[in-house]
Amino acid sequence: MDAEQLAELLKQVKSGDLAVEEAIRKLKSLPFEDLGFARVDGHRGIRCGFPEVIFCEGKRTDDIARIAESIVESGGNLLATRATAEAYDAIKKKLPAAQYHERGRVVVLKQHTQPVPPGTIMIVSAGTSDIPVAEEARVTAETMDNEVQSLYDVGVAGLHRLLSNREELTEASVVVVIAGMEGALASVVGGLVASPVIAVPTSIGYGASFGGIAPLLTMLNSCAPGVAVVNIDNGFGAGYIAALINRTSMRE
Amino acid sequence: MDAEQLAELLKQVKSGDLAVEEAIRKLKSLPFEDLGFARVDGHRGIRCGFPEVIFCEGKRTDDIARIAESIVESGGNLLATRATAEAYDAIKKKLPAAQYHERGRVVVLKQHTQPVPPGTIMIVSAGTSDIPVAEEARVTAETMDNEVQSLYDVGVAGLHRLLSNREELTEASVVVVIAGMEGALASVVGGLVASPVIAVPTSIGYGASFGGIAPLLTMLNSCAPGVAVVNIDNGFGAGYIAALINRTSMRE
Amino acid sequence: MDAEQLAELLKQVKSGDLAVEEAIRKLKSLPFEDLGFARVDGHRGIRCGFPEVIFCEGKRTDDIARIAESIVESGGNLLATRATAEAYDAIKKKLPAAQYHERGRVVVLKQHTQPVPPGTIMIVSAGTSDIPVAEEARVTAETMDNEVQSLYDVGVAGLHRLLSNREELTEASVVVVIAGMEGALASVVGGLVASPVIAVPTSIGYGASFGGIAPLLTMLNSCAPGVAVVNIDNGFGAGYIAALINRTSMRE
Amino acid sequence: MDAEQLAELLKQVKSGDLAVEEAIRKLKSLPFEDLGFARVDGHRGIRCGFPEVIFCEGKRTDDIARIAESIVESGGNLLATRATAEAYDAIKKKLPAAQYHERGRVVVLKQHTQPVPPGTIMIVSAGTSDIPVAEEARVTAETMDNEVQSLYDVGVAGLHRLLSNREELTEASVVVVIAGMEGALASVVGGLVASPVIAVPTSIGYGASFGGIAPLLTMLNSCAPGVAVVNIDNGFGAGYIAALINRTSMRE
Amino acid sequence: MDAEQLAELLKQVKSGDLAVEEAIRKLKSLPFEDLGFARVDGHRGIRCGFPEVIFCEGKRTDDIARIAESIVESGGNLLATRATAEAYDAIKKKLPAAQYHERGRVVVLKQHTQPVPPGTIMIVSAGTSDIPVAEEARVTAETMDNEVQSLYDVGVAGLHRLLSNREELTEASVVVVIAGMEGALASVVGGLVASPVIAVPTSIGYGASFGGIAPLLTMLNSCAPGVAVVNIDNGFGAGYIAALINRTSMRE
Amino acid sequence: MDAEQLAELLKQVKSGDLAVEEAIRKLKSLPFEDLGFARVDGHRGIRCGFPEVIFCEGKRTDDIARIAESIVESGGNLLATRATAEAYDAIKKKLPAAQYHERGRVVVLKQHTQPVPPGTIMIVSAGTSDIPVAEEARVTAETMDNEVQSLYDVGVAGLHRLLSNREELTEASVVVVIAGMEGALASVVGGLVASPVIAVPTSIGYGASFGGIAPLLTMLNSCAPGVAVVNIDNGFGAGYIAALINRTSMRE
Amino acid sequence: MDAEQLAELLKQVKSGDLAVEEAIRKLKSLPFEDLGFARVDGHRGIRCGFPEVIFCEGKRTDDIARIAESIVESGGNLLATRATAEAYDAIKKKLPAAQYHERGRVVVLKQHTQPVPPGTIMIVSAGTSDIPVAEEARVTAETMDNEVQSLYDVGVAGLHRLLSNREELTEASVVVVIAGMEGALASVVGGLVASPVIAVPTSIGYGASFGGIAPLLTMLNSCAPGVAVVNIDNGFGAGYIAALINRTSMRE
Amino acid sequence: MDAEQLAELLKQVKSGDLAVEEAIRKLKSLPFEDLGFARVDGHRGIRCGFPEVIFCEGKRTDDIARIAESIVESGGNLLATRATAEAYDAIKKKLPAAQYHERGRVVVLKQHTQPVPPGTIMIVSAGTSDIPVAEEARVTAETMDNEVQSLYDVGVAGLHRLLSNREELTEASVVVVIAGMEGALASVVGGLVASPVIAVPTSIGYGASFGGIAPLLTMLNSCAPGVAVVNIDNGFGAGYIAALINRTSMRE
Repeated sequence: MDAEQLAELLKQVKSGDLAVEEAIRKLKSLPFEDLGFARVDGHRGIRCGFPEVIFCEGKRTDDIARIAESIVESGGNLLATRATAEAYDAIKKKLPAAQYHERGRVVVLKQHTQPVPPGTIMIVSAGTSDIPVAEEARVTAETMDNEVQSLYDVGVAGLHRLLSNREELTEASVVVVIAGMEGALASVVGGLVASPVIAVPTSIGYGASFGGIAPLLTMLNSCAPGVAVVNIDNGFGAGYIAALINRTSMRE
Repeated sequence: MDAEQLAELLKQVKSGDLAVEEAIRKLKSLPFEDLGFARVDGHRGIRCGFPEVIFCEGKRTDDIARIAESIVESGGNLLATRATAEAYDAIKKKLPAAQYHERGRVVVLKQHTQPVPPGTIMIVSAGTSDIPVAEEARVTAETMDNEVQSLYDVGVAGLHRLLSNREELTEASVVVVIAGMEGALASVVGGLVASPVIAVPTSIGYGASFGGIAPLLTMLNSCAPGVAVVNIDNGFGAGYIAALINRTSMRE
Repeated sequence: MDAEQLAELLKQVKSGDLAVEEAIRKLKSLPFEDLGFARVDGHRGIRCGFPEVIFCEGKRTDDIARIAESIVESGGNLLATRATAEAYDAIKKKLPAAQYHERGRVVVLKQHTQPVPPGTIMIVSAGTSDIPVAEEARVTAETMDNEVQSLYDVGVAGLHRLLSNREELTEASVVVVIAGMEGALASVVGGLVASPVIAVPTSIGYGASFGGIAPLLTMLNSCAPGVAVVNIDNGFGAGYIAALINRTSMRE
Repeated sequence: MDAEQLAELLKQVKSGDLAVEEAIRKLKSLPFEDLGFARVDGHRGIRCGFPEVIFCEGKRTDDIARIAESIVESGGNLLATRATAEAYDAIKKKLPAAQYHERGRVVVLKQHTQPVPPGTIMIVSAGTSDIPVAEEARVTAETMDNEVQSLYDVGVAGLHRLLSNREELTEASVVVVIAGMEGALASVVGGLVASPVIAVPTSIGYGASFGGIAPLLTMLNSCAPGVAVVNIDNGFGAGYIAALINRTSMRE
Repeated sequence: MDAEQLAELLKQVKSGDLAVEEAIRKLKSLPFEDLGFARVDGHRGIRCGFPEVIFCEGKRTDDIARIAESIVESGGNLLATRATAEAYDAIKKKLPAAQYHERGRVVVLKQHTQPVPPGTIMIVSAGTSDIPVAEEARVTAETMDNEVQSLYDVGVAGLHRLLSNREELTEASVVVVIAGMEGALASVVGGLVASPVIAVPTSIGYGASFGGIAPLLTMLNSCAPGVAVVNIDNGFGAGYIAALINRTSMRE
Repeated sequence: MDAEQLAELLKQVKSGDLAVEEAIRKLKSLPFEDLGFARVDGHRGIRCGFPEVIFCEGKRTDDIARIAESIVESGGNLLATRATAEAYDAIKKKLPAAQYHERGRVVVLKQHTQPVPPGTIMIVSAGTSDIPVAEEARVTAETMDNEVQSLYDVGVAGLHRLLSNREELTEASVVVVIAGMEGALASVVGGLVASPVIAVPTSIGYGASFGGIAPLLTMLNSCAPGVAVVNIDNGFGAGYIAALINRTSMRE
Repeated sequence: MDAEQLAELLKQVKSGDLAVEEAIRKLKSLPFEDLGFARVDGHRGIRCGFPEVIFCEGKRTDDIARIAESIVESGGNLLATRATAEAYDAIKKKLPAAQYHERGRVVVLKQHTQPVPPGTIMIVSAGTSDIPVAEEARVTAETMDNEVQSLYDVGVAGLHRLLSNREELTEASVVVVIAGMEGALASVVGGLVASPVIAVPTSIGYGASFGGIAPLLTMLNSCAPGVAVVNIDNGFGAGYIAALINRTSMRE
Repeated sequence: MDAEQLAELLKQVKSGDLAVEEAIRKLKSLPFEDLGFARVDGHRGIRCGFPEVIFCEGKRTDDIARIAESIVESGGNLLATRATAEAYDAIKKKLPAAQYHERGRVVVLKQHTQPVPPGTIMIVSAGTSDIPVAEEARVTAETMDNEVQSLYDVGVAGLHRLLSNREELTEASVVVVIAGMEGALASVVGGLVASPVIAVPTSIGYGASFGGIAPLLTMLNSCAPGVAVVNIDNGFGAGYIAALINRTSMRE
């Protein structure tokens, strides 16, 4: 029931075509999302241009293509993460305009944009093997209409690589730090910048890295304040919240 | 070596009082923080009014008081977390203007403020026992010159308590969600709002809560995007990063 | 807004005292729990006689007494779990009719009852040290107006103690099994009865029992179907869901 | 030894054909299940129509087919879980009447039914990837002659999807909640309904979901009472105990 | 129902005083432990002299004394483990003959003995802090009428201490190895002897010993075969099974 | 240096052909295994007939065959565990007399036997999927010249299957209990018999079984004394120590 | 900016071509690694001959070859660990002088050497399956110009194998101990030698070895002092730090 | 049996006072430590001046004093770690020359020294709360006659504090890094220096630090090579192995 239907009901009450008791009964059982809740939800999508997202892992190729098509048909921006080349091929058959970001394993099809906020999101990664996760973050944030810079392979074992870029680091609105192995990069960056840091542990490493638990714990226990953490390998989540943070200044 | 000393050195080079070779040697071995690094650091404190913080747990009362005094003497704002009543008494003897926020166990003494950003930070907590952590977050963010609202005891077992306040929730710039037991509140809030959510697991609970691991995992695995997590019971950390996020719009 | 207020609003629409547009606005922003949600909630309490519950652990004695008083004043049944003798004394001063079940550490004050369902809840515990948890379950279920029987100290190391009572076991509507150490009792009981089994691991044990993780895993992996598990030491939770199950036949 | 054989023995004692000492010896060494224990067991199967179950995972295809045949030949209902298409083909060759529920990976062949209890079992799942587990639960409960409804893809990230179906939820006798990732759905449902909730964590998720540990802990720590938990991905176990609960009202 | 009662029943059947149908009914509902099960159990205690055991930890002093008295009155040997000096005092008041083994925290009162088997149980401990657990094992095995030798403080950091006693080690029937920290002693002993080794991890250690998990894992993974493990700090359990093993040769 | 060489050295000292100082030097640096240590080791193999064992997992097929050949050539009994059919084929080519126990994945070639001890080892397993581990234990114990009986598929969900065989159980010298899922069988058997019980957790199960951790913890925490545990799936280890225990009575 | 550029700048200051203020500004923003930091880093590589290392696992074959080529072109020694035969083939095509150490999975190409320190590094491994890790350590240390000895298959289950080589053990400057299963070898070696011991847990083992956690904990808890630990299976790391230790005496 | 006794035996063989056979028997059963093993052990103590160590935690005060006295009487250096003030008082009564290092909780009494090696051990700690562990390391290394420097409170949140001391860092022979919380300091230092780094995780921290597991994992997974790890809070162990490393150059 949308606003129009509600108006109709009230008019019927007014005209006497609908008894008050019957109107009460109808309103009580009204699914509340019809009263504006879902609309606010829909509204959010339209207002912010935040893409609908398909997490492809564990989904069948034809399902992915079908969901992608339905998102695009309903006018939304498409963002499909963890997409294999096969998944991309299937999507492309239905949506020739879709683009594949291979390293980040992301398929994107943008149909509308929104004003770009003034700040920059900086994506920092420790090693070359963290780059797929970093790219997933980058593409996510860019698809959400943000300016993104990236600084890869600046792990703490060669600290000077990071320090020589500290100017760009300190100028970013948000910094996303992506690191596997021991994940120390998040603490070091957290100590260098005054902006919020979103840390992403990756499952890169071996032995007692335990599939990302080691950097996860490192990042949660960061001695530098201003660091919050998303799930292991969750580049999408980091790019998404970084975009939300960067867009804060666009809210009225 | 600060800027003045550097100027002095360069003047000596200019005047010929210092050989170029000797000047190179001096500049090379220069501790680089003297070249601006530490100054940038200090600059950050002055510019943002971010308080110096004492984590009191495990420190001796007289040490706490002494550090507090030194922070205040150097002109900084004082924020002492996990402070017992005894710690407060010791601080107060030296710094009579210090104030104690008992529920959040925080001691504050503000000496200067900065412009308040337009957005609001909303602190949401699931149960009454999560309130100490929530208050630590609230006082931290307020001390950093933000407008903060709080919404306590709105756990998901009685969902209507949360939903009836959804307007305030959706209007906040940042939402901090604090929950123990199973921590489901973060996902539910993450699904309701368009702003970034900082989640704080608490060690409240028993049995297989394992001192906060249960809500920590819940929050890291949130099915709603836009949620990042800080350490268990780390109200300070949540308030701090929420303040950084809210201040994003104040950056030039 | 309750049903009467809604009727009033609709009457104003009907009479023309309230414009349709204004009515739409009011209904849209209506906290939906006022549309019946919270009322259903309140209704549930009144209809089922399920007690309001205070989890006393970690609460201050005077807070407990104050909450207890407010529950009783609002007409509810009082159930306070994990209550120390001190907590009971504080409650008793305000509510002389409150009773203390010492072994289960539960305070009860019943103000109204509901029809007792025909089935029986059987509480089975493995060792004498599991009895506090068992008693918490028993008092919870009884306060919720169920017939409860108990069979204590029938751990699997002396199987004949359990088997000689199998008739009572098989006749119960629901069986609650409480066990620490290795928790094998749940599987054995699950293999003997045709009714649902609610298993409660307890933190009784030492060494690699890990505060109840060992029996928790045992019970989750029960080779007998028909077993579901609640949290470690959560006698209240087991008694509560057992009562819900036993009352299933009372639902129309 | 069944009742008839026992009668024969006693008649021989009566007639003097069997010495008392010899009868004592026979009765003492009697496998006690022959004295009624196993019969009660068999009786249970016949009385309740609860199917014999084959857990196919890790069993060889021809073994599965052979066990299935033996169950059906002995007159029982067949329920084979975690069955691949190959397993189904092998069963079908021997038992052409067997049916395959592909999404839930269950093979069923019903030979007799029992009266259907009045209540309804509601199966609720958070995401589309939880559906295989949900379907396993649904088919299990239906095969045990219960009326089952299902409500899929109503995770807490879009709360309105769940809330708009709260009427059906609150009317069910038992609710089975199936969720991966963070598993918050169980707490939310537990706070909405007055009936017992059986929660099933699934291994859906990534990173710090740890193959289902995250939702398992979430569910065990649910802040809403009335929730009990079965093993990770154990749709069969949930459907089975839900059926037992729903049938409680059929017990005399 | 014991053998005599069964004979009486059968005689009544024979004489016609009891109808066959009635006899069937009685035999069916017969608690089977009366048919020899419980008797075998009792018989075991008398035949083997295995003591009844009280695990004192977490029990109240007066309860301990009361249970001890009842065991002794019923003619059994008393073994109370984890007994404090207070517990001993309480027992001694009721049972002046009870003796206290202070280091192993065990109270013993023997009332009867059985033939001592020919073999020897050797108790080996790694460090001096493991001695309480070692003594619990020693007293348990001695109370069960075995010859016991002990070899303490022979940890692998000073291997020669162990090797210089290898003759006694290789001559024992069973070796109990007790070690904390890393628990390597079990593997080393397992490689030296041809008899079964029972390993007991202790909670002695710090840091990543995790209350005994480190030596527990070490012992479970022993590269020497012939090693089985009991629970952390479970000296009683080790002494008990060592006694069972040593008595194997006494079984006819 | 063996005894003969030592005699030679001493004779040279006696004859004056070797100076005392030189003899001291030689004896000091003497690898002590040459003084009898290693010989005792070899002696053990010959005396007890305990087989040399090859753990095939992770070894290359040709390596396995080569080691097997060398063991057999040196006169030992061959026991190769975790052997695939391919490994067996490779062994058989070199050693045509080798036999393959397919279910237990064990290759055996016996060249000599020793007297069989009077007692019996009973192998008990909970489910049909535990049988490979059980068979590994059975073949190991038999190869070590013990009489072995087995009782499979007697899990606690159908307790009567176990109880109807309790006579054989109580008569065994040692009982090996093999169980996955929740592993409750070890406690139940431990409560029924007076002989030592060796428990083997298996990795059979799913969800929160965690590859055998659940039954491992269950077995370590057994409420019945007389139970010791070997590593997950370690059927060989259980059969080996059971054989050592059963042979205790053969030691002089 | 390197030293020459700095000299140029200072000369300009001296000549008056550059204002002091402008020089200050330039020096402040100077990336500090250009002031010698990174140069020191490069210096370290040249001075010590420590190889540049490629961790091949998870890298694409052509990437590996390309990085290898670039290292060699820049004059460094090449060490590529976890290299498959395919990776070696790809490297060899570009760098025909590269050599493959198959068992340790290491590719090496040395272009320059440095003086060999007087001490010896001893690599000790417990079982034959630990050899790949041991070989990785050996080749690493040798490539860094150390004298290395190795002693394989000397696990504690056959202690005499180790003890008969104790002279070589005690003479080494550093001992690297590599062990899986329970990892007890590190403690035993630590008790025998006076030199530092670097312990490497391996993921060899099964059941409760948990991919190397068991030996990792064993080694961290070693009762012998003088033992430090590197990550599971990290043979490279052990060889590297052993080389650093052995070269200590070469530092001026 | 020491060298003299051996000479005596050989002389008796030479003189004919002892038969060759009898000499063989005596030499075979000789505890081998008498053949030089223990002597080497003793020799090590005397040669290196490595102190005998008492780990005081969990020991009784009078036991500590008694062991300390015996060590000193036998001429050794005394090092007692984890010593309370009470323990020190008890030691001092017997040994007035003993000194107490309060912050590191260490009691020392040196009776002899050895030549100091040329290198320096640098102890680096992240926070002020890590200082007790750092001091334990420092006193241990100094007591073992090394030159030690320390650099405290240089955690990575304020990187410039560390970097401004990099010259001292790079000049040390060994660096001991002590850090709690997330432990990132070890990786950063490992990337800055060319000497071996020994990392000590501390239990300082809260929430998901888990008593030191977080920094332990961080350090084991260090992306910088040249880092090895000792147990949580094990300052003694770090100081000990650092001393062994620094003394490497003193070995002939």
